[in-house]
Amino acid sequence: MFDSIHEECGVFGIYEPTPKNVGEITYLGLFALQHRGQESCGIAICDDGVIRHHKGIGLVGEVFNKDNLNELGNGNMAIGHVRYSTTGGNNINNVQPLVIKHIKGNLALVHNGNLTNAQELRNKFELEGAIFRATSDTEDIAYQIVHDRLNTNSIEEAIKESMTKIKGAYSCIAMSAQKLIAFRDKNGFRPLVLGKTKTGGYIVASETCAIDSVNGEFIRDIKPGEILTISKDGIKSSFIESNSSSLCVFEYIYFARPDSIIEGSSVHRARLNAGKILAKESPIDADIVIGVPDSGLDAAIGYSNESKIPYGIGFVKNKYMGRSFIKPTQEERNLTVKIKLNVIKETVENKRVILIDDSIVRGTTSAHIIKLLRENGAKEVHLRISSPAFKHPCYFGTDIDSKENLIACKYNSNEEIAKVIGADSLAYLSIEGAHKLADNSKCHFCDGCFSGIYPIETPKENYKNKFEEKINK
Amino acid sequence: MFDSIHEECGVFGIYEPTPKNVGEITYLGLFALQHRGQESCGIAICDDGVIRHHKGIGLVGEVFNKDNLNELGNGNMAIGHVRYSTTGGNNINNVQPLVIKHIKGNLALVHNGNLTNAQELRNKFELEGAIFRATSDTEDIAYQIVHDRLNTNSIEEAIKESMTKIKGAYSCIAMSAQKLIAFRDKNGFRPLVLGKTKTGGYIVASETCAIDSVNGEFIRDIKPGEILTISKDGIKSSFIESNSSSLCVFEYIYFARPDSIIEGSSVHRARLNAGKILAKESPIDADIVIGVPDSGLDAAIGYSNESKIPYGIGFVKNKYMGRSFIKPTQEERNLTVKIKLNVIKETVENKRVILIDDSIVRGTTSAHIIKLLRENGAKEVHLRISSPAFKHPCYFGTDIDSKENLIACKYNSNEEIAKVIGADSLAYLSIEGAHKLADNSKCHFCDGCFSGIYPIETPKENYKNKFEEKINK
Amino acid sequence: MFDSIHEECGVFGIYEPTPKNVGEITYLGLFALQHRGQESCGIAICDDGVIRHHKGIGLVGEVFNKDNLNELGNGNMAIGHVRYSTTGGNNINNVQPLVIKHIKGNLALVHNGNLTNAQELRNKFELEGAIFRATSDTEDIAYQIVHDRLNTNSIEEAIKESMTKIKGAYSCIAMSAQKLIAFRDKNGFRPLVLGKTKTGGYIVASETCAIDSVNGEFIRDIKPGEILTISKDGIKSSFIESNSSSLCVFEYIYFARPDSIIEGSSVHRARLNAGKILAKESPIDADIVIGVPDSGLDAAIGYSNESKIPYGIGFVKNKYMGRSFIKPTQEERNLTVKIKLNVIKETVENKRVILIDDSIVRGTTSAHIIKLLRENGAKEVHLRISSPAFKHPCYFGTDIDSKENLIACKYNSNEEIAKVIGADSLAYLSIEGAHKLADNSKCHFCDGCFSGIYPIETPKENYKNKFEEKINK
Amino acid sequence: MFDSIHEECGVFGIYEPTPKNVGEITYLGLFALQHRGQESCGIAICDDGVIRHHKGIGLVGEVFNKDNLNELGNGNMAIGHVRYSTTGGNNINNVQPLVIKHIKGNLALVHNGNLTNAQELRNKFELEGAIFRATSDTEDIAYQIVHDRLNTNSIEEAIKESMTKIKGAYSCIAMSAQKLIAFRDKNGFRPLVLGKTKTGGYIVASETCAIDSVNGEFIRDIKPGEILTISKDGIKSSFIESNSSSLCVFEYIYFARPDSIIEGSSVHRARLNAGKILAKESPIDADIVIGVPDSGLDAAIGYSNESKIPYGIGFVKNKYMGRSFIKPTQEERNLTVKIKLNVIKETVENKRVILIDDSIVRGTTSAHIIKLLRENGAKEVHLRISSPAFKHPCYFGTDIDSKENLIACKYNSNEEIAKVIGADSLAYLSIEGAHKLADNSKCHFCDGCFSGIYPIETPKENYKNKFEEKINK
Repeated sequence: MFDSIHEECGVFGIYEPTPKNVGEITYLGLFALQHRGQESCGIAICDDGVIRHHKGIGLVGEVFNKDNLNELGNGNMAIGHVRYSTTGGNNINNVQPLVIKHIKGNLALVHNGNLTNAQELRNKFELEGAIFRATSDTEDIAYQIVHDRLNTNSIEEAIKESMTKIKGAYSCIAMSAQKLIAFRDKNGFRPLVLGKTKTGGYIVASETCAIDSVNGEFIRDIKPGEILTISKDGIKSSFIESNSSSLCVFEYIYFARPDSIIEGSSVHRARLNAGKILAKESPIDADIVIGVPDSGLDAAIGYSNESKIPYGIGFVKNKYMGRSFIKPTQEERNLTVKIKLNVIKETVENKRVILIDDSIVRGTTSAHIIKLLRENGAKEVHLRISSPAFKHPCYFGTDIDSKENLIACKYNSNEEIAKVIGADSLAYLSIEGAHKLADNSKCHFCDGCFSGIYPIETPKENYKNKFEEKINK
Repeated sequence: MFDSIHEECGVFGIYEPTPKNVGEITYLGLFALQHRGQESCGIAICDDGVIRHHKGIGLVGEVFNKDNLNELGNGNMAIGHVRYSTTGGNNINNVQPLVIKHIKGNLALVHNGNLTNAQELRNKFELEGAIFRATSDTEDIAYQIVHDRLNTNSIEEAIKESMTKIKGAYSCIAMSAQKLIAFRDKNGFRPLVLGKTKTGGYIVASETCAIDSVNGEFIRDIKPGEILTISKDGIKSSFIESNSSSLCVFEYIYFARPDSIIEGSSVHRARLNAGKILAKESPIDADIVIGVPDSGLDAAIGYSNESKIPYGIGFVKNKYMGRSFIKPTQEERNLTVKIKLNVIKETVENKRVILIDDSIVRGTTSAHIIKLLRENGAKEVHLRISSPAFKHPCYFGTDIDSKENLIACKYNSNEEIAKVIGADSLAYLSIEGAHKLADNSKCHFCDGCFSGIYPIETPKENYKNKFEEKINK
Repeated sequence: MFDSIHEECGVFGIYEPTPKNVGEITYLGLFALQHRGQESCGIAICDDGVIRHHKGIGLVGEVFNKDNLNELGNGNMAIGHVRYSTTGGNNINNVQPLVIKHIKGNLALVHNGNLTNAQELRNKFELEGAIFRATSDTEDIAYQIVHDRLNTNSIEEAIKESMTKIKGAYSCIAMSAQKLIAFRDKNGFRPLVLGKTKTGGYIVASETCAIDSVNGEFIRDIKPGEILTISKDGIKSSFIESNSSSLCVFEYIYFARPDSIIEGSSVHRARLNAGKILAKESPIDADIVIGVPDSGLDAAIGYSNESKIPYGIGFVKNKYMGRSFIKPTQEERNLTVKIKLNVIKETVENKRVILIDDSIVRGTTSAHIIKLLRENGAKEVHLRISSPAFKHPCYFGTDIDSKENLIACKYNSNEEIAKVIGADSLAYLSIEGAHKLADNSKCHFCDGCFSGIYPIETPKENYKNKFEEKINK
Repeated sequence: MFDSIHEECGVFGIYEPTPKNVGEITYLGLFALQHRGQESCGIAICDDGVIRHHKGIGLVGEVFNKDNLNELGNGNMAIGHVRYSTTGGNNINNVQPLVIKHIKGNLALVHNGNLTNAQELRNKFELEGAIFRATSDTEDIAYQIVHDRLNTNSIEEAIKESMTKIKGAYSCIAMSAQKLIAFRDKNGFRPLVLGKTKTGGYIVASETCAIDSVNGEFIRDIKPGEILTISKDGIKSSFIESNSSSLCVFEYIYFARPDSIIEGSSVHRARLNAGKILAKESPIDADIVIGVPDSGLDAAIGYSNESKIPYGIGFVKNKYMGRSFIKPTQEERNLTVKIKLNVIKETVENKRVILIDDSIVRGTTSAHIIKLLRENGAKEVHLRISSPAFKHPCYFGTDIDSKENLIACKYNSNEEIAKVIGADSLAYLSIEGAHKLADNSKCHFCDGCFSGIYPIETPKENYKNKFEEKINK
């Protein structure tokens, strides 16, 4: 899958008992989380109570350089953010960390997720004279916390109070002059983990791979509904009443990095499992199993292991194509797919091929890939998707394409879709299968985008309209 | 004068009856106002009620390019800002236009000046739960307007109400979805002028040179205490009760561009006058009168005209030195002055020289220049300054160096200072002289930085502390 | 393998019967060849006899943008080059294409390989008054061709004559005002292939993947000793007397892209074969076979297939680390390896691991990787290398590290090396094995860097000194 | 004058007895020479016999930064170059210093001027198999020197020999491993001066202002036909038979910086003189004399001094417009002139104005400026040009527009031209006047572009064709 399904964000935070190069460490952590958002990023550090930050549009390696990392300097806390932006991307006001001043001091905030009552909150504050700079809902969270801070004794109490008012998905890290506070919505839609450093400090991050990348040690997942405060007094947790957890199952299927462990379950293993379950649910006789790089490879190995059909490497993905790539003006449109992804003819020529991908959105890329396989001599191409079909909007931080564009909404059967994209057969993982892939996970899952059944109330009008609107547009 | 006295900002706004390239025009207007602030800039345009903006750290020519001007696109209103930042410069949150969303819609705001009750306002709003992103006081103005908008029927009414609460210096332009509103504090500390375009539109700008640069026609100054609203219904003005005006006299002496006309008086003429008055007040026998480029040249011609001593060009200023200039590591410190400003020996050799500059701050640059003149054969160097001596802080938008660094605060007499900087004699323009330079101006002046007497109450504690603090630090 | 063995270059050329966007097509072709050189690149196009070019330091996506591609414009021929530079990299004079003017017109030249008599040629020309701007040997080739052009009737005759005088490895494309000429040394050290476009034109490139990437069709390999001229009269070939071919076997093992086909043999298949042969030559009992991404993966699958030990994905490679990555200042040195390459614990924990890499140079990276595997719970780590050990210099266009740094030169046995890098066992592919990996290839191979036996005379003094010198330094 | 007459280059060289920051010093020297060429620049330093260089397209402040100056490092010699390029500008091959390797070692070369027999030289070398990368004639000089070096005992002897073969204008600095050699054509068309440093070293530069800018001391002009060698043995000069000198008189009028002294005459004084002579030759009754900034200001003061008509400042020139300036798309064409150059109404309103400029090329800019003056209330505008009219091509390093575009070629009388550009009257300086402006200069002048009479043979066919060709195009 190349296009159209995007995680919104990745967050990282570090607390050290004594001043250190926390800005640099956060920079490294963001590198490990870059897959969760590639449009903008930022870091805020806290140096003896003073918050300094730098942020910008672009990849971590583009926004940060020696000079601005040096300007950030050392400190004992830092938080960072990588972001995929659904709205234009060029608006610096939306880039996080959000750094604000309020009556009790300074606050920096990073957020992964999406609120379901953002509009209501915004209306409430605006009626009191609030001004908003960003279009993202992070500013709503900040306002709620600051309001609740007026009547509470500490920032963590304010956050706890606020968590009863903000609804939806949020895995956040807040940094005040003295404390680093991680908090996660009561459904635990998005992952958030805790680790420790070799120098007595703590790390909070969206995924364990970020802890690994800075030589930290994973401790545990932050729990749904937990408020975890790190300060000179160590770690303290409190909780709001939590729901039955409902982690986004697509974190396992696509968003998270395979080396991460979420809620006790290895992402890599979950993908292998997805492939295995898929092989059981939708077997087909063939000569080779190949995956669409990079995210389809794990499931392809799983499918191969289960089906005993040999695994092969079917594609070479061009590593050098970035945003700066200039599309050819006079050539046919599918050339770009070919430049990005070339078929290894040796692997597929004269073979019946099982092609594994993690999802289909519009189907155009799948069609191009299948065409390329046939041009390289594949006799049959059976597409197997390691997730159920997208048919419904996500309200919890995933940017799913509009109904009009989703191929699974446009056609009634897998047969029809297979025909449209040129596959000999097509099968998706079943929703039941999706629930089984993280076999040793301790949590439950949200499968709303597949089933249309959501674990909490959703903002019917607004979002649905937006979802439909895209259709009508 | 090279260093240490800085205007804080320049503002520009345009309203057209029908959509046009208002972003491009604002870009041109900001080029003409660049002398008022070189650290950051931005433009916001309003296209059928939708506000888009782009801003960044750097000169207008660095921040804007074809791509981002195209992205801004056409519209029927735009506002722009150039800024000199006193605090680090690297904080994108302070860059204007400030673009916000509030209960009644969108608002963009640009501001030149400085509030005297910013801290009180901020405290008031923070106590109600407000969050601030910027350290500049523009956000305070925005909050006050948005609060007052809750109980008024229009944005211009809200602004009028707010103007009774915000104190100090502000020449502002606000842009809502439908209206462009210029408003100026009741003392008229900073200039603000109105012009019209050839296509039925209106321009508001800090100086007339910006109106000229976009082929507009000057109409009149915006009056102290005026709220001028431009909309599809044309122009309407209302007023708050105004004080006796007190324009910053340093606008004539240094800040404004010589081709601008402020309050009916040509800036160029005011500088010629400053030179003439200075010649009358502090005559000296000499062979040649030269000015320190660029801002000392006008006064030098005035001095020459009055004294009948020939005017000469004493220096070549290097036009190519920008922020990217890398200072030599192993050379003596005054080399940088020499690279920037070389003496034309032909002009000064074996001559008694009257050197005109617009001001002295620390005196170091003056000392270097005088040394260069002597090295090139000047027999005598008599320094004449076309403004009175800086001895007091400014509360109204000028960044004056700390008391400790001001040479006029460190020494008791002109003789002492002359000795320190190596001049044969030194004289400043008298404060009375300063009040006479804009001879046909309709307004009164603030001379607080020279006299220590201010036209309105000043924030004693805070600012004075800051001013002294610099001394003690 | 991350470091220290580098291919020097990739070349691309296109000839179209009528003017087209040949610059853009070459840009795409270079993207597909970027793995052959990442330090600089360039494109020259020929538009109605006029040659325009653009080149620079950096990746293709960094050096080229819409503006400079537009300036290159359309034409009927173009050549391009990607380069890895052994000498500083920052010298624009060495960047190719080399574009020159000579007595008969203009000539652009790109070159992959390395001459063995560059110094002699350079001396000869310099004695006649020649001036050189580059330190690379491409300028020597140009001089020889231009000299031979004085006494021949066509550029292709001149090249043929020159090919009897220049010795060593060269796969070149020359572009004159009218012709595109590909020529390859008589040993065929470096690959060079011919393809055709859908619009009646021809493509010459280092690898077939570049032909694929521009929607071309592969025709055949350019033969050792062949001079192939493409002009309005179509294709013509002539030949110098060729040696028994001796393609660089490391092209199969590491340099070329797995989807390329060289001399009739798929690179991917050759790597699978390398793994299979390695499994036969050096079997070991284990639970999982993993490869070091990306170049060790193919061989790992081959090893797995042959040994029947399951294949697994052992690592996640960070896709976002480029040259701009800033190494942490205060952390231990191996952190960078960890950020680049994180272990998937799920795959290796409590397992006996066979780790496949394509080569070892200094051994430091291998040691880091093995350490990471153990930290993630691997019980045993058996390192298998899908190429023989580097022990000798390459004279034909590969930049091999100095003897002092090559771990295979420093220690006498695989056991010793295994101990140093922390592996439980270590085995290399045998030289005989290397000769068998491209089983259906039509050519012979050079294995000089493994065996020390070279197919042609080598420049003993010079190079050896350089190779030893690095040792003594 | 804004457009169309361009000096080709500025050169700078430094020799120090012991290693120093010569790269940095050259960087400063080039800043002072930037007015002689703004399109590209470069520096080569010699560090213990090893030459390192960096060059690029752009201003000195754009091409050089801390990193690449550091990479250049220290040495005991350096040369630098700023260039205005007549041919596209984007060809890095033409950027100087030209750094080459030849049979006797390394050589770096910078050149200001233009050869008249470049084509013949190029043909001669090409017939011997030479290859050229650049289109500029500097490479021809290098070839000649290298050829002559084969039969001479030193680089300075080779240069002396070469100087009898290369014809036209050249003020050059060559740097070998041991020596810095300045040489100037026997007519001395372009300036070249010698200075010394405070640390026992020597400086060679196009103008004295560059010596001043690095705290050096001017010694004397390099003589026409002189070869001056600086080495560890000190300074030695030899000479070829020289012609009667013929310095380009336009160096005084426009090219050189006013603070420079050429052949004993101050450039500033020469411009004052030009104004004085012009006032005598073409007096007119008026109220004010103003100059077009920056190059018309000196002559305006001269005119004012002679005529006793007051001098005034008529314009403000926008200092911030660089190459990045984006011209407005929808506005009338003359807006750009207005943005660049605004009239100070105060100075010209209701006045009879004498406007002084240094030259007219196409007349379009003059027309715009006169229009602006009238719009600002000038009652009369009398244009006086401080140089004779351009009517002929320059063969010696000045890029004069084609005959078709030169307004003095298109119309027969000053009256006609005055009418076309909207002036009330127009007068040029006489050619005789031009010869008198540098009253204490020791040299004679070339006035070929005014008179059509050249001091040496000119390449009739080639250049004339080019000059005419532009006409026919």
